[in-house]
Amino acid sequence: MPFHAVIPAGGSGTRLWPLSRKGAPKFLHPLGSGERSLLQSTVDRLASVAPYDRILVVCGAAHAAHVARQLDQIPAGNIVVEPGPRNSAPAIGLAAAIIARRDPDAVMGSFASDHLVADEAAFVAAVTTAIEVAETGRLVTVGITPTRPETGYGYIRQGESLGIGAARAVLEFAEKPSLEVAEKYVADGYLWNASMFVWQAAALLDQIDKRLPELGIGLRRIAEAWDTADADSVLAEVWPTLPKISIDHAVVEGAAADGQVATVPAELGWNDVGDWHTLGDVLPAESGQPVVLGRAEQVVALDAPGCVVVTRSAGAGRMVAVLGVANLVVVDTDDAVLVMGRDQAQRVREVVDELDRRGRTDLL
Amino acid sequence: MPFHAVIPAGGSGTRLWPLSRKGAPKFLHPLGSGERSLLQSTVDRLASVAPYDRILVVCGAAHAAHVARQLDQIPAGNIVVEPGPRNSAPAIGLAAAIIARRDPDAVMGSFASDHLVADEAAFVAAVTTAIEVAETGRLVTVGITPTRPETGYGYIRQGESLGIGAARAVLEFAEKPSLEVAEKYVADGYLWNASMFVWQAAALLDQIDKRLPELGIGLRRIAEAWDTADADSVLAEVWPTLPKISIDHAVVEGAAADGQVATVPAELGWNDVGDWHTLGDVLPAESGQPVVLGRAEQVVALDAPGCVVVTRSAGAGRMVAVLGVANLVVVDTDDAVLVMGRDQAQRVREVVDELDRRGRTDLL
Repeated sequence: MPFHAVIPAGGSGTRLWPLSRKGAPKFLHPLGSGERSLLQSTVDRLASVAPYDRILVVCGAAHAAHVARQLDQIPAGNIVVEPGPRNSAPAIGLAAAIIARRDPDAVMGSFASDHLVADEAAFVAAVTTAIEVAETGRLVTVGITPTRPETGYGYIRQGESLGIGAARAVLEFAEKPSLEVAEKYVADGYLWNASMFVWQAAALLDQIDKRLPELGIGLRRIAEAWDTADADSVLAEVWPTLPKISIDHAVVEGAAADGQVATVPAELGWNDVGDWHTLGDVLPAESGQPVVLGRAEQVVALDAPGCVVVTRSAGAGRMVAVLGVANLVVVDTDDAVLVMGRDQAQRVREVVDELDRRGRTDLL
Repeated sequence: MPFHAVIPAGGSGTRLWPLSRKGAPKFLHPLGSGERSLLQSTVDRLASVAPYDRILVVCGAAHAAHVARQLDQIPAGNIVVEPGPRNSAPAIGLAAAIIARRDPDAVMGSFASDHLVADEAAFVAAVTTAIEVAETGRLVTVGITPTRPETGYGYIRQGESLGIGAARAVLEFAEKPSLEVAEKYVADGYLWNASMFVWQAAALLDQIDKRLPELGIGLRRIAEAWDTADADSVLAEVWPTLPKISIDHAVVEGAAADGQVATVPAELGWNDVGDWHTLGDVLPAESGQPVVLGRAEQVVALDAPGCVVVTRSAGAGRMVAVLGVANLVVVDTDDAVLVMGRDQAQRVREVVDELDRRGRTDLL
């Protein structure tokens, strides 16, 4: 069965302000060690399991031009522009409907546009196993082996082995836990839910028809018009009527309860780059030196252990000097600078909210 | 006797990098609460004791254009451009020689270009008393009543009252002390030496002739040509031959030992703005809020007590956000940002030295 990859490119990444903005969210920025954006790295990583003409990106209208330019190897017809944000079930469901019309036997995977994966070989191996499991008709999620009792993620409770690689049945999806519960989950072998899914496009549509029939009807109407001249008008008419719901809530959690979901546990060096502190933990730094994202020659760091310095000013760029400070985040962009303690990384939204109150929509 | 004011506008202010640069040192920047530069504020403060045509500024060639534009009320012939830096004795001595030729009976004062004085009335009163004492022939220094046992300044040991206002004889100038010695000085009524001098121009030239005759000869040669067409060529020829020495070492310390120096103790709210930490102590801030130098609307500060935030980017300006940090200095300029602990303020030169090593002369 041919494999198609879908990348829902949504999410604002507010906690990565001032780099991430409404007009240029997290996935458009290089946040790994190279110069490729998170979105480009996601495509690079998928290229060995899906050719470019079988990679579909779903993005918002405000980001379509950026996405199209960053991914010039993806056919224009594979860049699906949502008329408005309606959460992940319509986005992934529409991709499934388009793929199923083009290729009724397709297996597809959905992969976040804004995560880091350090071990690409492990990623390909996990996806390959997941495809094999998906061909049996199950919905499959790649579950991340936890490295800490993180309270910011959902968890996956594994059941019996399915006899295909490391794949196991999924008994339950668990909501974000308290620290105490998270510690128990990690001890009990739960996996992190990274919203990395593999399934037959037709199987997903069947699940949608069963669990949220009005969504299935709408998606099919759009998909039928997709590769025709009517695509835009049908999309504009139907899209706003679709329910705003996540794919997890709409389909995956119910299917798991019905015993129709599997998971492939994997150690990928995965990170969701949720905030600047987390990014500092992922990127390399020499001992006693700050983590630098951007050009090292734009940073002078003297006695700045544990700091994260991000230099993303345009052109030749501004110099950023940090002197005698520990565990700070310093982010320099063309029109805004952020200085905070790394332990404040969850509070960045407060700055954005304050700017919103001041009417500085140019900085949001 | 008519009063003339001299402002030697030198010094690089390296510890105020990245605002202060070799090409635009500390005195050219607004570091007080308003938009006037330290140099402009110095002229403003002197305007009530000396008319503009009796204010002389001595500056380096690299800063002449900036000085001339900032001080457009000062006659061009009163802006003395040094062909090269030779410390304060040639600079102040040349001013004295020019003034003495224009006005043989003149009393003159010399005032740093880059200090803050909060109490302008007290300043005028102290200078007025100093002028009265200077008319008796003594060299007079305005001595600052210490507010702390500062180890970064020289001290003045007072002797008997001279019967003119608060003026007293000076017994000795003491070098920068250790903390222990500084504490003793403060307890014993020593004053800070702020290099604020008042004397008859002729009296200073007499002292120079006596203590450093070759300097006196050179200065007179330049002064004779000053208001003629030969000014430039004579200055260029003679200036490089003058001894590089401070006015304190060349004249004032020796004159004090000979009992020829007086001091007027004064409480001026004086500050030499030596570094960013000091500036933070001088400028006002609301409780729990950072000190902001620049436009407050360019700063978002959430839980940032004890911080000093300087926003001096051009045009509309960059936003600077500080979140959950205490006692930091953040200085934002067009081409460089500095983030440091306030207790690191003396170490800024290390950053400048590192940039020099990297060949970034554009940032020095």
